[in-house]
Amino acid sequence: MHIAATAPLRDADDLSLAYTPGVARVCEAIAEDPELARTYTWVPNTVAVVSDGTAVLGLGDIGPAAAMPVMEGKAVLFKQFGGVDAIPICLDTTDTEEIIATVARLAPSFGGVNLEDISAPRCFEIEDRLKEMLDIPVFHDDQHGTAVVALAALTNALRLTGREPGQARVVISGAGAAGVAVAKILLQAGITDLAVTDRKGVLHSSRGDLTPVKRALAETTADLTGRTGSLADVLDGADVYIGVSGGTVPEEDVARMADDAIVFALANPTPEVHPEVAHRHARVVATGRSDFPNQINNVLAFPGIFRGAIDVQARSITEPMKVAAATALADLVGDDLREDHVIPHPFDPRVPGAVSRAVAEAARRDGVARR
Amino acid sequence: MHIAATAPLRDADDLSLAYTPGVARVCEAIAEDPELARTYTWVPNTVAVVSDGTAVLGLGDIGPAAAMPVMEGKAVLFKQFGGVDAIPICLDTTDTEEIIATVARLAPSFGGVNLEDISAPRCFEIEDRLKEMLDIPVFHDDQHGTAVVALAALTNALRLTGREPGQARVVISGAGAAGVAVAKILLQAGITDLAVTDRKGVLHSSRGDLTPVKRALAETTADLTGRTGSLADVLDGADVYIGVSGGTVPEEDVARMADDAIVFALANPTPEVHPEVAHRHARVVATGRSDFPNQINNVLAFPGIFRGAIDVQARSITEPMKVAAATALADLVGDDLREDHVIPHPFDPRVPGAVSRAVAEAARRDGVARR
Repeated sequence: MHIAATAPLRDADDLSLAYTPGVARVCEAIAEDPELARTYTWVPNTVAVVSDGTAVLGLGDIGPAAAMPVMEGKAVLFKQFGGVDAIPICLDTTDTEEIIATVARLAPSFGGVNLEDISAPRCFEIEDRLKEMLDIPVFHDDQHGTAVVALAALTNALRLTGREPGQARVVISGAGAAGVAVAKILLQAGITDLAVTDRKGVLHSSRGDLTPVKRALAETTADLTGRTGSLADVLDGADVYIGVSGGTVPEEDVARMADDAIVFALANPTPEVHPEVAHRHARVVATGRSDFPNQINNVLAFPGIFRGAIDVQARSITEPMKVAAATALADLVGDDLREDHVIPHPFDPRVPGAVSRAVAEAARRDGVARR
Repeated sequence: MHIAATAPLRDADDLSLAYTPGVARVCEAIAEDPELARTYTWVPNTVAVVSDGTAVLGLGDIGPAAAMPVMEGKAVLFKQFGGVDAIPICLDTTDTEEIIATVARLAPSFGGVNLEDISAPRCFEIEDRLKEMLDIPVFHDDQHGTAVVALAALTNALRLTGREPGQARVVISGAGAAGVAVAKILLQAGITDLAVTDRKGVLHSSRGDLTPVKRALAETTADLTGRTGSLADVLDGADVYIGVSGGTVPEEDVARMADDAIVFALANPTPEVHPEVAHRHARVVATGRSDFPNQINNVLAFPGIFRGAIDVQARSITEPMKVAAATALADLVGDDLREDHVIPHPFDPRVPGAVSRAVAEAARRDGVARR
């Protein structure tokens, strides 16, 4: 990646315009009216991709230096698919308060913040607090990017198998960043029978070992249906399985799911159940991998979401904006809906525009758009 | 300014290489050997241009949002003249400790830190502490960029007027970031009779109102010669005047300087004394402006200094590296030395290469080069 000037600098005249003394007039204008920073600087189109390197891909806590290639790759995707100038920022701290304070102090330099690969449960508090403090979009992609694309794919998979969201029995394995966010967006989208499992089984309030985040999730999921037990227990007869756990699911558990089952095995690079195995028992299978059909790839969501938010200078990225992104993604599949095509291909050229338009409209409806 | 990818992203294969799963191998390699971050990421060629917006050009404390155009312009100059990818970072804090902590936490993301437009005396402590904490170059351009170019121009002006550094009586008005740094580099370069003035006159230890920084400076300058009094007092008979104050110097004070006087009136956009007025009494006149000869422009120094430091992966930018940059700049003028040409033109294409080579060699000699 590199930086490039958008205007040429050929001679002393250009220099005195781009730098002193010309630049002083721009500074004075912004000092008088801070909103002009949105017109006269690169700030509004710039997103900080911020990580502390604690939950990088499937590699875990590898530290800020080793996390940089992921943030740099992400920045390239931001540019290619969303036209967004993203700056990779890897922080030399894993302390929640220090991360919050640091990102808040950086805020005047950026039009948005994309949190990335920060481990749970710290990621929840970091995102929540920054959203409260800042009036620019703050978005933890590992949570919401995954949630948006999973919802889009599930919407189409339910259509294909003739199910209404309110009728589907859904199981999510994994209660980390992605699992929590997928659960929340599914509840918003009308899923009512939802069980989320961690390594010890279904999250429900009778368990004494739940973190505050998991307890809150239990109260809106399995507590409502009374489902308890192991992952195998709740998979028995379930319509939908969404794995964001990195664990494994034995074939016999998938075999006991309902007819026309839907299996999203999203762990990367090793899905919870191999798609060929899943296909013996399920009608729709998706993974996080590019070498199988139905790839649940965040790149379908985050560039368009930020593009849309930036286009209307949104103060934040709200739940309705995320759901709008998912709906736009699902609708793009249209009449081409098939078992092996419930989500658009990452290189489908219609994706960024469709997502950004839907997000911009939702931001306006939701009252967070500045223009 | 915008971000651009250095490699194309045309299809799913490119995507799986630039991002998951391909990027994981790069992360793992760096996790094992952190030095590989210098090979596999954009970090080593990237410099953070950090400001808190408290001392922007001649505008003063205009805040981080209004400071952004200067930082962005600076980043464009870094790229154009040094091939360095610079990221403008304006901080929403003016607290010394918070600035230090924030920049230190950002360090894994950058190959160097250029501090910019941070007011004195905080800028001294911020730079000193960060230099101690970090093993990448930390450079406050308002101090050292100005100092390097002023030394280069003065070296040639002394040659032209047949003076040795040890014989010249030098006066600096202004004891802020630039004044302190110019004084220090002149002492290093062999100037022995030096008086620095602030608004209350010459800095000397008998004054009761000196900050620790000014007191230390007094001890190595006017204390040694016993000079006291006002700016007018010390200009009487002085060989060299360097203004970095933003104040004004009356014509009669310039008139009382020695024969063949040297006047650098560097305040921007209004020099301490107009160059036409100065020329009535002085043989060599320089300003900070592009519309007069002999422009003391930092762009002659900082891109080549960082380029040279990055090329050898220097751990810091040392005093000998700065002096080497000044010597290289002065030598470029060579046989073209004239009263109106004591410093190269900012667009002289030889400048960045000459400065970076000299800085890289000095880094190796000084033992701070990693390669």
